[in-house]
Amino acid sequence: AARGARKMEDYGRFLVLLASALLVGFVSVILSLVWVFHHREGLSWDGSAGEFNWHPVLIITGFVFIQGIAIIVYRLPWTWKCSKLLMKFIHAGLNTIAMILAVVSMVAVFEYHNTRNIPNMYSLHSWIGLTAVIFYSLQLFLGFAVFLLPFAPVHLRAALMPIHVYSGLTIFATVIATALMGITEKLIFALQSPAYSESPPEATLVNCLGLLLVIFGSLILWMASRPHWKRPPAENAKILRPIGAAPEGTEVESTMTNSSNADKSDLRSNTEAARKQNIKFDEAGQRSTM
Amino acid sequence: AARGARKMEDYGRFLVLLASALLVGFVSVILSLVWVFHHREGLSWDGSAGEFNWHPVLIITGFVFIQGIAIIVYRLPWTWKCSKLLMKFIHAGLNTIAMILAVVSMVAVFEYHNTRNIPNMYSLHSWIGLTAVIFYSLQLFLGFAVFLLPFAPVHLRAALMPIHVYSGLTIFATVIATALMGITEKLIFALQSPAYSESPPEATLVNCLGLLLVIFGSLILWMASRPHWKRPPAENAKILRPIGAAPEGTEVESTMTNSSNADKSDLRSNTEAARKQNIKFDEAGQRSTM
Repeated sequence: AARGARKMEDYGRFLVLLASALLVGFVSVILSLVWVFHHREGLSWDGSAGEFNWHPVLIITGFVFIQGIAIIVYRLPWTWKCSKLLMKFIHAGLNTIAMILAVVSMVAVFEYHNTRNIPNMYSLHSWIGLTAVIFYSLQLFLGFAVFLLPFAPVHLRAALMPIHVYSGLTIFATVIATALMGITEKLIFALQSPAYSESPPEATLVNCLGLLLVIFGSLILWMASRPHWKRPPAENAKILRPIGAAPEGTEVESTMTNSSNADKSDLRSNTEAARKQNIKFDEAGQRSTM
Repeated sequence: AARGARKMEDYGRFLVLLASALLVGFVSVILSLVWVFHHREGLSWDGSAGEFNWHPVLIITGFVFIQGIAIIVYRLPWTWKCSKLLMKFIHAGLNTIAMILAVVSMVAVFEYHNTRNIPNMYSLHSWIGLTAVIFYSLQLFLGFAVFLLPFAPVHLRAALMPIHVYSGLTIFATVIATALMGITEKLIFALQSPAYSESPPEATLVNCLGLLLVIFGSLILWMASRPHWKRPPAENAKILRPIGAAPEGTEVESTMTNSSNADKSDLRSNTEAARKQNIKFDEAGQRSTM
């Protein structure tokens, strides 16, 4: 009973963090729209400033908010009864949407620059942003090839999973850092009289937007790095795995799943058991630093 | 024998990453000096641009490089024979040095702004930077009170350790993001003819410096988040702890260590055994995402 109460409390804590992240992410998207519609030239696709404005809106919506959700989608407890394959499709799908929005937002900047004869790719923002997009597409491609397609052997998946997780979180943090540089650039260039240094309302609004992006990123990284909020391993994987050895990433289930020997009617109680076993492992497994 | 070879290979991999991080960090410090001496006004303390220039140099030296080393100092294998208390002093000492350099570097900017009647604290860089410094000092104070002083009970240390690790890494990443914003600001303001957008040599040099900071951060975060590179638990902690349960942060050793019952001459072999046991736990403990 005490254990159940502790589990409910932990579940409640996850929900509070999730709600906070969704709220902060949602408000960030709204603020980016307020920025471009109330303080800037709105949105258009004609090489004008209105085309540039797609850049912050799509980056914050896609490359920050949607990517953030994609990162924690496996951790939503009500998805644990869904198949791992379905969740992989959702994870890959959200990341693909984020990728497309990031690419469109880059096209908007290049077209805007070219119309105005502003050089491309001179700033640190552009260097690190392009690097992040390249690594993000590599990550998407490798993730698809190794974890979604059914060809990669289990030991390869196990070896690559920690790298996949690390690069995903590092790219996400880099994207937020790049957005902060972009905000800095845009406010310096766009605010002339009054200048950025005179703190007009637009400057305060967009500074707050930048702070919200940092808070959103911190919430996602916290949720993504708590071992006890991880999706429990699937029931057939659990059966194949000896007690006391549950290495990360050896997803014997996943897209290669053969028909399981487990009685399907036991699925729910098995999942429950797996979760309990997880909690036990996590207590032993807390040695990881994040 | 195969296990020994694997361990040596893993040790070699750690050394390669450590050497890379030290090289990248060292080159970053050098580039910051080349920047201010070759392209800017050098260093001075008279309210002029030379005083401002302490800001990038001290931030990169202290708040990025030294903080990065402080983060991974427990993971240097040749320190595992040193007492945990000594390592805590080194960790806290390096972070204190980083903190002092960060504060001095902020004083330099405020004095420079005040001499020139430039407003303070208007930019996103300043907002996030000051927030990072405040959280960093809180982290330092709490770390000192909970983990270094001998008063905090074991369960409190165990509960706070994951938060300490998470906030340390998040603050470190935020500091690097803030440095990138600062570089962006400075290049836009300082480069007039030729402008930043014309990519003069200074712009290219400092963009490269920004890239190096991202690489340095990524290397530190990788080294800090591999569970198998963690310092093995101390021998008396190991004795007190039942096999199969080694929760993170329950540092029964640490500053509260009573005289151990273990034969001191067995220290080396015990440490070796602890390390082996760790590797076993890590295999089970890989469930953590980072």
